[in-house]
Amino acid sequence: MLEKVDLTKEISKEEYKEKMPVLEAKIGRLQRECKALNIPIMIVFEGFGAAGKGLQIGHLIQSMDPRGFEVHPIKNETEEEKMHPFMWRFWTKTPARGRIAIYDGSWYRRVLIDRFEKRTKNKDLPAAFHSINSFEEQLVEDGNLIIKLFLDIDKKEQKKRFDKLEKNKETAWRVSQGDRERNAHYDEYAAMMEEMLFKTDTDYAPWTLIESMDRRFATVKIYTTVIKAMADQIEKVKRQNEKKAAEKAAAAAAPEKAATADVIDEIAKEADAEMKELQVSILSKADLSLAYTREEYKEKLDKLQAKIEKLHGELYRRRIPVVLGFEGWDAGGKGGAIKRLTAKMDSRGYVVNPTASPNDIEKAHHYLWRFWRAMPKDGHVAIFDRTWYGRVMVERIEGFCTEAEWKRAYKEINDMERDLTDAGAIVIKFWMHIDKDEQERRFKERQENPEKQWKITDEDWRNREKWDQYEDAVNEMLMRTSTDYAPWVVVEGNSKYYARVKVLKTVVDAIEERLKKEE
Amino acid sequence: MLEKVDLTKEISKEEYKEKMPVLEAKIGRLQRECKALNIPIMIVFEGFGAAGKGLQIGHLIQSMDPRGFEVHPIKNETEEEKMHPFMWRFWTKTPARGRIAIYDGSWYRRVLIDRFEKRTKNKDLPAAFHSINSFEEQLVEDGNLIIKLFLDIDKKEQKKRFDKLEKNKETAWRVSQGDRERNAHYDEYAAMMEEMLFKTDTDYAPWTLIESMDRRFATVKIYTTVIKAMADQIEKVKRQNEKKAAEKAAAAAAPEKAATADVIDEIAKEADAEMKELQVSILSKADLSLAYTREEYKEKLDKLQAKIEKLHGELYRRRIPVVLGFEGWDAGGKGGAIKRLTAKMDSRGYVVNPTASPNDIEKAHHYLWRFWRAMPKDGHVAIFDRTWYGRVMVERIEGFCTEAEWKRAYKEINDMERDLTDAGAIVIKFWMHIDKDEQERRFKERQENPEKQWKITDEDWRNREKWDQYEDAVNEMLMRTSTDYAPWVVVEGNSKYYARVKVLKTVVDAIEERLKKEE
Repeated sequence: MLEKVDLTKEISKEEYKEKMPVLEAKIGRLQRECKALNIPIMIVFEGFGAAGKGLQIGHLIQSMDPRGFEVHPIKNETEEEKMHPFMWRFWTKTPARGRIAIYDGSWYRRVLIDRFEKRTKNKDLPAAFHSINSFEEQLVEDGNLIIKLFLDIDKKEQKKRFDKLEKNKETAWRVSQGDRERNAHYDEYAAMMEEMLFKTDTDYAPWTLIESMDRRFATVKIYTTVIKAMADQIEKVKRQNEKKAAEKAAAAAAPEKAATADVIDEIAKEADAEMKELQVSILSKADLSLAYTREEYKEKLDKLQAKIEKLHGELYRRRIPVVLGFEGWDAGGKGGAIKRLTAKMDSRGYVVNPTASPNDIEKAHHYLWRFWRAMPKDGHVAIFDRTWYGRVMVERIEGFCTEAEWKRAYKEINDMERDLTDAGAIVIKFWMHIDKDEQERRFKERQENPEKQWKITDEDWRNREKWDQYEDAVNEMLMRTSTDYAPWVVVEGNSKYYARVKVLKTVVDAIEERLKKEE
Repeated sequence: MLEKVDLTKEISKEEYKEKMPVLEAKIGRLQRECKALNIPIMIVFEGFGAAGKGLQIGHLIQSMDPRGFEVHPIKNETEEEKMHPFMWRFWTKTPARGRIAIYDGSWYRRVLIDRFEKRTKNKDLPAAFHSINSFEEQLVEDGNLIIKLFLDIDKKEQKKRFDKLEKNKETAWRVSQGDRERNAHYDEYAAMMEEMLFKTDTDYAPWTLIESMDRRFATVKIYTTVIKAMADQIEKVKRQNEKKAAEKAAAAAAPEKAATADVIDEIAKEADAEMKELQVSILSKADLSLAYTREEYKEKLDKLQAKIEKLHGELYRRRIPVVLGFEGWDAGGKGGAIKRLTAKMDSRGYVVNPTASPNDIEKAHHYLWRFWRAMPKDGHVAIFDRTWYGRVMVERIEGFCTEAEWKRAYKEINDMERDLTDAGAIVIKFWMHIDKDEQERRFKERQENPEKQWKITDEDWRNREKWDQYEDAVNEMLMRTSTDYAPWVVVEGNSKYYARVKVLKTVVDAIEERLKKEE
């Protein structure tokens, strides 16, 4: 891509002065429109050092309403960032719906500067590119507009600019040893950029090359690119909204149509029912008669808790992060298991994240955003009481997301967990399993016990009526998202004693295995 | 995925006898419906040896109309297949619209049996998985339904079945040394299968696990899976067709709406025009004054043709395939250049493929299908007079494909060319470039010369009117699809002498460079 670029283009001062006010007015207008339509926008600035990223960003934001955007300078990782998976800082910096996020440098540094300086190893490149494309694809599918600008200058011009900056005492600090290094090995670095452009120039998030030898030309091209992308996105969203409204109206106008099922519809329904019968239920394999007596429980619990106390310290020293997800039937014993798990752990080293329905801010982001934010730093344990798997359970069953969305989610979730384990985390997911009778017993007990009444709501009873639907969804989830790097563990939970011990033992075993591997 | 599978499910003889006639009738019905709707279907059978793939396929096709399907047994590559890129045999075996292709073994062998037997190297695995997913995604986006069935049995059962086959003289030949090998290393092989299932279990082409310990159970589950997938696809296509019809009707009913352009629409259009101005034209960089005299031409041509004659033999000996694509303006000199290029080549070692509008059979397949079929075997040269780039030029401009389709095509084409070069091919694309005046001169000359009149049609003049649109499309194409592994070469063509020499020299240089690398 780069070899084909003509860097000689210029714009005269007069032409520039004439054009800019019009472009600036347009950006403002479009920003308001995007806000009204709830479109989140990400603008990425990448390119050669001294190509003018900072200057161009400064210029671009002048025509924007400052309440509607943030600029994120992406430099070397902070200590805090270093202790998280690489994509963590970017997931947490995705814009809310209707807002603009501008990145001065970005997640591409991992395959550019970090690669050049050998912080990214060659063997990790395929995973890094996969991770980047997955990140962008997920956000675009969630409605984000991603505009990627690559500012291009040639080796000579770069050297000239560095020289000029260095001559001036006030700007000399801006030229680093690394900048000089990359200028000296311009061709080598350009080859990495070329590879990056090809592997990430996708139809959902294409690159635009900005020829930046002439600053006026670059400014005009950046403005025009952003304007075109915003205007196109607005039209696209408007068309989608109209379509949706028309479909809704059509559906409302012809409700009888659904009733006149044709033969194919009939066959599809029958096949659905038949498939369910044939579906091998992972849950049904769980032996719910497994149980411990109080004595067995006490003894095992004491031993395991003593172990986890020690191991928790060891995790901290070795800087290993741990992610534990808890899902299960209502009254399945999640809370009790988490309590026993953490009883002897150092409270500074773990957090329990309860997951309720998303609040307004969370709803304004991608569904994985709030979980990314809560991911533990190295050496810490993050426990989730209900998790991102809500997407393929409650959201699927209640119709809070479309079929395409929950079907896509298996891969998205596998990708996220892969990012976590690639960054060194231990990831385990528990399904706290009880049968329907046991649930009823526990529900009733809660209702009768004044101290436990708060734990049971009408919604719990309503969910119980959908047991079969949930069972299908859970079986599919266990099948599609139990990976060797982040396995599901079905916990036989009719006996609370047994369940708590199994959770503790699973965690202890996983940590011990990891420590052994690292030795 | 595999570890979660319960292999103990069974179906009784009675239940089986009751169910099968109903399922068989349904398959027949759905096949006719899919044919009517022009849905192409691919059914993939993979899984452990002796899991019953052959038997199940035999059973499945009994209920199908034999005029509507083919079964492709995928065994070791034939000599012919070995001399082509790996995906070649599968691209050429994709079904036409309305037809069913059943694969007994498939493209997955590359990451399974070929991997186990070390014919696929570990370092080639990421490219292999990418290639597989890209293949399936492209076909699904083109309307194919892909049903992937994985037949699962455990180690003990597999051994038992092998033993039984071997005891009987008539079936003993069916158990190979490789089968025994894979049974002995069942766990190792299963781990490869597990990795394969995870990397290729996509929302567009998901896997269904078929528990195959009990043959009746497996048969019923296969039938039901296929029925469900077909019925769902039929409903999806019907909905899409209804939607399209409704949109068409709505557009026809409200033609005035397009006229009332709103502000955003106006801004988008202006930005479009502006971007075009800023677009750095790769074509405009070509120096069309480059020319050779007749003497220079003669001398260079002779030398280069002598060289290519020798190199062509060398290519054959070294088994290196070459793919040369020619695109360019009408009357740009493609034909003349190809003639001089091939003049001294051995006619048994090259083919010139002229590309016209697709015929009916070609239209019934993915747009890349006809080009895949024509890809050269090792040691041969395939020259394309017009190419797969029609997708992003004429099809884009004339609206023969949707915007989403041609935007996606850049990546699809890059992926295809990558498959070719990964398999060892030299791939070069030439853009035969002339300016508008030169084209007019040549058109007129053709019209006036009775021997050349056949070369010029009204369509050529009509295309000429769209010169600017084509120029934009060509510039974008050159930018997005010129890769280090398959570069575009812009040939300055106002001087036919210069152009022919440049083409020859480019090919000679590329071959010499490759031969040097291989030494």
